[in-house]
Amino acid sequence: METAFSADVFNKSLPINQQCNLISHNIVLNHGDVESKRAEIKSYFNQTFDLYEALFETLANDEAFYLRPCSLRHPLIFYFGHTATFFTNKLVLAKLLPKRINPQIEAMCAIGVDEMSWDDLNDAHYDWPSVQAIRNYRQEVRAAINQLIDQVEFTMPINWQSPLWPVMMGIEHERIHLETSSVLIRQLPIESVLPSPLFPLCPLQDVSAPNNTLLTVTAGDININHQDPAQYYGWDNEYGKHHAHVQAFKASQYLVSNQEFFEFVEAGGYENSQYWDEEGNRWRTFSPVKHPSFWLQKDNKWYLRCMTDEIAMPWSWPAEVNFHEAAAFCRWKAEQTGKPIRLPSEDEWLRLRDFSQALDYQDEANCNLQMYASSTPVNGCAAGDFFDVIGNVWQWTQTPIYPFDGFKVHPLYDDFTTPTFDNQHNIFKGGSWISTGNEINGHSRYAFRRHFFQHAGFRYIESKAEVQTEFSTYETDGSVAQYCEFHYGAEYFNVPNFAKTYAQHAINIISTDRDFSHRADLRVLEVGCSVGRACFELATYFNEVTGLDFSARFIRIANQLQTTGSVLYTIPQEGEIMAFKEQKLRDLGLAKTASKCEFLQQDASNMKPIFTGYDMIIAVNLLDRLYEPKKFLQDVAHRLNDGGLLMLASPYSWDETFTQKENWLGGYKDGQSGENVHTLESIEQLLSPDFAMLGAPQDIPFVIRETQRKFQHTMSQLTLWKKR
Amino acid sequence: METAFSADVFNKSLPINQQCNLISHNIVLNHGDVESKRAEIKSYFNQTFDLYEALFETLANDEAFYLRPCSLRHPLIFYFGHTATFFTNKLVLAKLLPKRINPQIEAMCAIGVDEMSWDDLNDAHYDWPSVQAIRNYRQEVRAAINQLIDQVEFTMPINWQSPLWPVMMGIEHERIHLETSSVLIRQLPIESVLPSPLFPLCPLQDVSAPNNTLLTVTAGDININHQDPAQYYGWDNEYGKHHAHVQAFKASQYLVSNQEFFEFVEAGGYENSQYWDEEGNRWRTFSPVKHPSFWLQKDNKWYLRCMTDEIAMPWSWPAEVNFHEAAAFCRWKAEQTGKPIRLPSEDEWLRLRDFSQALDYQDEANCNLQMYASSTPVNGCAAGDFFDVIGNVWQWTQTPIYPFDGFKVHPLYDDFTTPTFDNQHNIFKGGSWISTGNEINGHSRYAFRRHFFQHAGFRYIESKAEVQTEFSTYETDGSVAQYCEFHYGAEYFNVPNFAKTYAQHAINIISTDRDFSHRADLRVLEVGCSVGRACFELATYFNEVTGLDFSARFIRIANQLQTTGSVLYTIPQEGEIMAFKEQKLRDLGLAKTASKCEFLQQDASNMKPIFTGYDMIIAVNLLDRLYEPKKFLQDVAHRLNDGGLLMLASPYSWDETFTQKENWLGGYKDGQSGENVHTLESIEQLLSPDFAMLGAPQDIPFVIRETQRKFQHTMSQLTLWKKR
Repeated sequence: METAFSADVFNKSLPINQQCNLISHNIVLNHGDVESKRAEIKSYFNQTFDLYEALFETLANDEAFYLRPCSLRHPLIFYFGHTATFFTNKLVLAKLLPKRINPQIEAMCAIGVDEMSWDDLNDAHYDWPSVQAIRNYRQEVRAAINQLIDQVEFTMPINWQSPLWPVMMGIEHERIHLETSSVLIRQLPIESVLPSPLFPLCPLQDVSAPNNTLLTVTAGDININHQDPAQYYGWDNEYGKHHAHVQAFKASQYLVSNQEFFEFVEAGGYENSQYWDEEGNRWRTFSPVKHPSFWLQKDNKWYLRCMTDEIAMPWSWPAEVNFHEAAAFCRWKAEQTGKPIRLPSEDEWLRLRDFSQALDYQDEANCNLQMYASSTPVNGCAAGDFFDVIGNVWQWTQTPIYPFDGFKVHPLYDDFTTPTFDNQHNIFKGGSWISTGNEINGHSRYAFRRHFFQHAGFRYIESKAEVQTEFSTYETDGSVAQYCEFHYGAEYFNVPNFAKTYAQHAINIISTDRDFSHRADLRVLEVGCSVGRACFELATYFNEVTGLDFSARFIRIANQLQTTGSVLYTIPQEGEIMAFKEQKLRDLGLAKTASKCEFLQQDASNMKPIFTGYDMIIAVNLLDRLYEPKKFLQDVAHRLNDGGLLMLASPYSWDETFTQKENWLGGYKDGQSGENVHTLESIEQLLSPDFAMLGAPQDIPFVIRETQRKFQHTMSQLTLWKKR
Repeated sequence: METAFSADVFNKSLPINQQCNLISHNIVLNHGDVESKRAEIKSYFNQTFDLYEALFETLANDEAFYLRPCSLRHPLIFYFGHTATFFTNKLVLAKLLPKRINPQIEAMCAIGVDEMSWDDLNDAHYDWPSVQAIRNYRQEVRAAINQLIDQVEFTMPINWQSPLWPVMMGIEHERIHLETSSVLIRQLPIESVLPSPLFPLCPLQDVSAPNNTLLTVTAGDININHQDPAQYYGWDNEYGKHHAHVQAFKASQYLVSNQEFFEFVEAGGYENSQYWDEEGNRWRTFSPVKHPSFWLQKDNKWYLRCMTDEIAMPWSWPAEVNFHEAAAFCRWKAEQTGKPIRLPSEDEWLRLRDFSQALDYQDEANCNLQMYASSTPVNGCAAGDFFDVIGNVWQWTQTPIYPFDGFKVHPLYDDFTTPTFDNQHNIFKGGSWISTGNEINGHSRYAFRRHFFQHAGFRYIESKAEVQTEFSTYETDGSVAQYCEFHYGAEYFNVPNFAKTYAQHAINIISTDRDFSHRADLRVLEVGCSVGRACFELATYFNEVTGLDFSARFIRIANQLQTTGSVLYTIPQEGEIMAFKEQKLRDLGLAKTASKCEFLQQDASNMKPIFTGYDMIIAVNLLDRLYEPKKFLQDVAHRLNDGGLLMLASPYSWDETFTQKENWLGGYKDGQSGENVHTLESIEQLLSPDFAMLGAPQDIPFVIRETQRKFQHTMSQLTLWKKR
């Protein structure tokens, strides 16, 4: 074992692959002239296509294309055809290709990138094309795209709307699969793969790992404001704004090496459930595993499976693990050291990158295939005092991927990121030796399921700062999302926002009321506040706003808006095609006063005594959704201060789903008199002991969007009452 | 038995009751001055109240109030309290009384006028008030109404909106119950009733019946146009227009006497199912009966139960039967005579009344309590050559009650008539000895279930004319009624009628098309025509219009409109309170060309080959409701003539209720490419082999009313295609 290995020597001696034409550079999209850009992109496309094909040359024979690298994944033949198919699909969708190139192959190779269910993988369902057929197909696609690039009219800059955007999308998509396919190849039986001079293994295998130490990273801010058109091609999740202040922390100088990780293995870390969270324990016992996935033990000796080679364990190389293993190591390490050791957040990693000025060292990092087709020792590539801040292997973070402010989906690829906003996909950063293109453009954000394996390891940090691991996900509960749009979304048929309208009406009334116009300490209660828009509007005038709703599903959104200032949701466009929406209190001018609100879950037919002492109570579109509307009306007077105002509105849409017929306030023939009973009459009767009606009832229209073409359009009857 | 009885003597000798103050006259409501009208109505009210109380004096004791006259009816105590309760309910509803007078009594006496189910009549449910309590209650109501009449402000004429209308409604309602209660009293045990000098029995009991003969009634027209404000109080069903031509017929000179009916009884008519229709046979076997209901047989002798007396059978009095018995008699009589003997229709009875000038003889008829409190011999009261055209007993007709053109419900009593528009309530005409007020005002139309007994008999006629016995009933099928309103009803939110809009669009397109603008023999097919409005609109231009719909429920309405020119339906206002609507092709200017339409039930996904050779095919709001929309589009071209036009429109509201997801044309991610598929793209792809799109797609809004406050507001995307 070489022990006197020096990082300095390492860096200078090794970039053997740098002259190879497989090394690429990101295309600048917002600058340059059309024809030279056309040439650049054409070259980048062909280089990508070459590179991808070159990777598959590492398969030992055609049979290897049909083996499953993992029981839940398609064989590599699928991925070989998939990236070309993706080009075709996106270009057909963008109306840049007149028709499909090979519908049969495209049918087989479009869907199934991710883990699938057992059922989908039944071999009987697949009659894969031959390798030669895919090669021929790729040639056809290559020709079509070259022709397209040659002929398409476009202007600079190349932005989301540019016809070259889907071309770039196909290229960068293929570069992602270059990396993920290299992982799948690494999972094939060793006899199915062949080393290739284009993908050289790092020879520095027998060096000992350095002792890891924790170095300080000072506090700092993260300020991201990434907008289209940008310098490089980006995926939807990179765009938008993000600001964070990162407290000072300590970070390990090196990635955790196989050596360092071995201590955890030897300490029985894999057997001890206390180092694993609930999800981690589920994975651990399901697998079951005792060491990192690419480690092999033969004759009591440890080996590492690389992409095309099995080698004696290179103890100085980074340990490659999934998130659960990395997090378990940190828990063990924290226990050992008594320090708050954990994985960094995305922001902490970004702070480390800034602090170490790692982007300045990127050309000397083990990434972009510019060094080796394998890991290298963890003390090989410095960035300031740290090593491997960028490159070598990806580094897991504690942060599940979430959208930046102003996130929008690209219409040609609306499911690239959105399905991963589920708090189950964690971000890893930095890139690996085979990360190229967008993966290492400095903006990209990739996230994987926490049990997935990639060329990924980790660096640990010491910090007492809290890490956010739950983000608001896209509200997909149909009715809740519908109400998000109703309260915060667009106006349809020129009908003004309903919640804003009645809240403004309430403000107008109380601000001109003889008892209340002079007071600044007013308290208002909204019963049935749903997702809270009216409460936020009321808070611009009232001093204290309480919003109650029976449904925790709805009130949760109001709370979330108050806490985070924004809400994400999806609403149907046509059939199952969804639109992705984000709404912010700030954009509605409601952020500053939102803290005056309080939102609570409460049954309007059975309200707690504590809800009392209000100057105004509002119940809009509520009565016909209560199981005992009478009880609410009979119980409301004592909750109001003297002279207090009650605002009611309802479309009187009585429905036995919500209210048993015997409890309807109207809309039936009276069981005793046989006469029609109208709701307004019953309300008048129930309120008359304590209230006088102010003015005449008035109709307020509202529109609830169901799809982009279908709406509910309703008239709610609003009445105002003053407590005697 | 007196045999030399002469009608002339009879008429002159008998009106012994005419001086009694129980005889009333209808109040003229459209003429007179306010104060004298106030006095007249007050007097009419008190006389009615007196009369009703007088009737109940015939009960032998208080116990009699609590006996059931019939197993499915309340005891008379209910009816004694009911008419006063009705006053209260209507006056409270009309906001003319500030509050209920006796909520407890009113709760018990409001509902249950008609036959009830066994369950409702469980005595345990009722704790009837004492007779004295009802007497006291009636006094209170009487005082309140006298005060109301004294004080209420009103103007002449007294119309449906007048505050005196509900007072008149209460009075006339009580007069109806005067008669129906007299029937219930007639059904009590004889020991529970007492003869009263106010309700004298006709002494002419022992006269023989005349031989009935058929006399000619010449053909003539019926022309009714009865509008508010009218001369007298009327129920909703009397108003509107009705025109009919009545062919000449022969009518029996006399009502059928007990003598004449006895021949049918003796001939075994009650045992022979061939004289009874299906419903009649059900009633006959359920009862089971062998003779008219008020007949009694003791010691082989026949007796008749009158209101307060049992007497030896007065063979010359009219037979009192229900509709089934009357109709069975006619069938038997027809068989016996070989002539087309049957009951008259309402129109035929009206023609008989005109022809006999019976209204001129009304003062001498046995009605309005002006003669006896029983029947009189059938040859007693002449009207021209006929007898008893008005009065004595009601006369069944073959006509189920139906609304005249322009029928509207009165808002204070929306269920007076509407529940009887069910083809199960037959009209009887003429009135009985106890018919008063509205019952004999010349306009009224009363109908009862065909198995009910009243003081009712019949007259038969000879005629080969067809009689209409099925009328359109109120469409109460929620979705069908909703579409009736959508196609023929009001416009909401200023959105123009949708069916008319797209039909006009179709006409505009074809009338300017190079291939069709010059042709007058154009054929159009609408697939998914629903209740047919667009077809009727298309028929104003096209020479031949075929409308197809999968749903027999919907196409039935289109057919009915074509046949009868009108449709009736109910739509929800608030909860279960319904609005009653009638729509006419004539009012829409569509009556004249309606005959060019043909409506057929047909599956759009599997249309018969016969539907071909069209110049235009229209399918609006259809595609997303088909189970195989693709099949429809693939199959449509060959049904069009060369250059033919195809109009499609849809909101693309794909829904698995109608279309399995695998058959959606869009609104999903393609299973092969994973890309979003929009419906319009699929339509373009499916139609492109045979069609070229004309112009750009356009959005046409439509509004479907759900309640008076709730609507669906949708945008349908319309595209036009020309066959290559």
